[in-house]
Amino acid sequence: MRPVYLDNNATTRVDPAIVEVMLPFFTEQFGNASSMHAFGSSVGGALRFARQQMQALLGAEFDHEIVWTGGGTESDNTALLSALETQGGRDEIVTTAVEHPAILNTCAWLEKSRGIKVHYIPVDSRGRLDIEAYRRALSPRTAIASVMWANNETGTIFPVEVLAELAHEAGALFHTDAVQAVGKVPMTLRDSEIDLLSLSGHKLHAPKGIGALYVRKGVRLRPLIRGGHQERGRRAGTENVPGIIGLGKAAELALLHMDEENTRVRALRDRLEKGLLQRIGNSFVTGDAGSRLPNTSNIAFEYVEGEGILLLLSKAGIAASSGSACTSGSLEPSHVLRAMNVPYTAAHGAIRFSFSRDNVDEDVDQVLEALPPIIEKLRALSPFWAKDGATGFSPSYV
Amino acid sequence: MRPVYLDNNATTRVDPAIVEVMLPFFTEQFGNASSMHAFGSSVGGALRFARQQMQALLGAEFDHEIVWTGGGTESDNTALLSALETQGGRDEIVTTAVEHPAILNTCAWLEKSRGIKVHYIPVDSRGRLDIEAYRRALSPRTAIASVMWANNETGTIFPVEVLAELAHEAGALFHTDAVQAVGKVPMTLRDSEIDLLSLSGHKLHAPKGIGALYVRKGVRLRPLIRGGHQERGRRAGTENVPGIIGLGKAAELALLHMDEENTRVRALRDRLEKGLLQRIGNSFVTGDAGSRLPNTSNIAFEYVEGEGILLLLSKAGIAASSGSACTSGSLEPSHVLRAMNVPYTAAHGAIRFSFSRDNVDEDVDQVLEALPPIIEKLRALSPFWAKDGATGFSPSYV
Ligand SMILES: Cc1ncc(COP(=O)(O)O)c(C=O)c1O
Ligand SMILES: Cc1ncc(COP(=O)(O)O)c(C=O)c1O
Repeated sequence: MRPVYLDNNATTRVDPAIVEVMLPFFTEQFGNASSMHAFGSSVGGALRFARQQMQALLGAEFDHEIVWTGGGTESDNTALLSALETQGGRDEIVTTAVEHPAILNTCAWLEKSRGIKVHYIPVDSRGRLDIEAYRRALSPRTAIASVMWANNETGTIFPVEVLAELAHEAGALFHTDAVQAVGKVPMTLRDSEIDLLSLSGHKLHAPKGIGALYVRKGVRLRPLIRGGHQERGRRAGTENVPGIIGLGKAAELALLHMDEENTRVRALRDRLEKGLLQRIGNSFVTGDAGSRLPNTSNIAFEYVEGEGILLLLSKAGIAASSGSACTSGSLEPSHVLRAMNVPYTAAHGAIRFSFSRDNVDEDVDQVLEALPPIIEKLRALSPFWAKDGATGFSPSYV
Repeated sequence: MRPVYLDNNATTRVDPAIVEVMLPFFTEQFGNASSMHAFGSSVGGALRFARQQMQALLGAEFDHEIVWTGGGTESDNTALLSALETQGGRDEIVTTAVEHPAILNTCAWLEKSRGIKVHYIPVDSRGRLDIEAYRRALSPRTAIASVMWANNETGTIFPVEVLAELAHEAGALFHTDAVQAVGKVPMTLRDSEIDLLSLSGHKLHAPKGIGALYVRKGVRLRPLIRGGHQERGRRAGTENVPGIIGLGKAAELALLHMDEENTRVRALRDRLEKGLLQRIGNSFVTGDAGSRLPNTSNIAFEYVEGEGILLLLSKAGIAASSGSACTSGSLEPSHVLRAMNVPYTAAHGAIRFSFSRDNVDEDVDQVLEALPPIIEKLRALSPFWAKDGATGFSPSYV
């Protein structure tokens, strides 16, 4: 049986076509892009082309609005720290309770070490942002508002264009962590008021260790990493040429596959979701079904431990996840599901299935076959299930 | 004619054996190392092995003293900023006038934005550190002393083990930017007092975009990039798995080739140097011939412009550099040669030839044939040459 990989929000397989375009830049065109000789300058043109490929995917106005970084986390850190430096006198951040640790842990450190005030806007039980609370938190003290484009665990999409406009009304910069959205959701940044946007290569079939920060023309950026004059002084360090070439190609391919993502991939996701809910009682989808990434399904199976499910799925050759990869290994239910007030008995049994264009029909079939008996077996062992579930009790949340 | 690449201090060709070990981690073992399923855990063992390979090259006591980063610049930035945070109350940095911009520009920013006092220890005309001045600059206010292991432009090696001991006597941390030294100079960090050491993959035949920071056990590190718990909380962001695997392999190969570096590669460098000095008058080696990287030769050709030399060399299929790649494009002579008080007429004509194990005898032959007529031609056009050089005048420096 072919292994089933449904953890594409954690990372994706690098597209072989991407590896292919990268290869010459390891051993042939290996020059330093800053060098004056032929080995260096031959690389310059390729880098420019990659920037244009990314510009096209994001619908950005200028290719120089793209700053290459080492990944989504670095982009997120850069955006927040830069805003605090450039937005003189403003010492508050507005963000959400459901951001990725790349934002939340940076904010926690800024609170502790620099006395920055951070507003964590809550979400409702479907993961939707409390826009009134967001609006109230914005003030002349807000340096930056940072709201993810789509949540990595539930797939819930936030109305970032509207949120950017509200931030600007308060004179704040607006950043969005779009690590999960880029390549899955069509974007036209040039028509938006988004100032800064983070993305990460390995979430869209490019390699790990390369990412980008979109910085709207006119928005000042203070580098996080200082040194040479690479990236117009916005990110020092010898350019990761093969990574950049790969991410450029990934952008081109993502644009090409955008329709597929929203039809074929979405259909796979929907069939899995419907099939599981039909076959397994006391289960429900978390997140906003009305506004959700086409590839993500987060399903809570009540009265079972997510870790147990994952283990048995893994034995059946199926990869999925509970919580996000970065926080797995802990026994706490995910901070996202807690922020959504998903009841404890359900949050613990939440599993994220995340698809990509690599998935096929048989992947869905395999999960539909393997998972119901796994849940049944685990519930049979659960003291809570015996007490509540079997008697038909269901949390008010559903 | 085969192109001659003598700019290995700018960047090296990735060893095909390294590309080969990386390849499976793009498209087969592509999991996120933090994931709980088989796709993730199969990666964990490979990462551990890479860390041990690097441990061996550095002669470090523990493999967990290696923190993977996005490159040498990130490592340098992390070391300095971390020390200022962990060395409570200490607000001074001691460094040298000849560091790489990754250190110097970070220091300049710390002076300007945080009021940190930075001592830039001078060097003599051979590039040797003024150790007395270094000693005097250290004080109970020194958070960290940062001195490069070897200079990227001249190859001059600094006595970092001794400098580390002196720093410790003042209660300061000691960091070394060993980006140019790792893989060229044998190291046994476990027997030294070095606390922090930066290295960059692409200088030792691994790819660009991966590097490491050695952090001695017991030395506290504050991450530069915050988010997930990767690298034991010392550097957040999804691990660059193929890059790490590649850098591990590069460490293994560097250890294997260390003798070659110090015999065959050194002999190539020496033959080029001797040959050029014989064939071209009014030229001299900059840097400390007594304590120098085996692969680097920086030769000043008086009364010519380095850019002109590079251009004509490049036309002859030969890649070398003037100054460091990061600062090329500017017309200022390199800050390193200025710190060494190399006379203006010579500093402008300084060319760095940097070898690696990829170089062969014919590379040297080609340069020995191509360069003398280039210098002659350029000097014939130089007004200074007509005035001083031809009359036998030579700066007192030589
Ligand atoms: C929403 C979100 N932001 C940021 C990140 C961090 O990206 P990276 O791990 O590539 O640095 C991730 C992925 O883990 C993510 O899902
Ligand atoms: C001495 C030294 N330090 C730091 C760096 C920066 O390394 P990277 O460009 O890989 O970030 C370099 C290379 O350019 C260097 O030569």
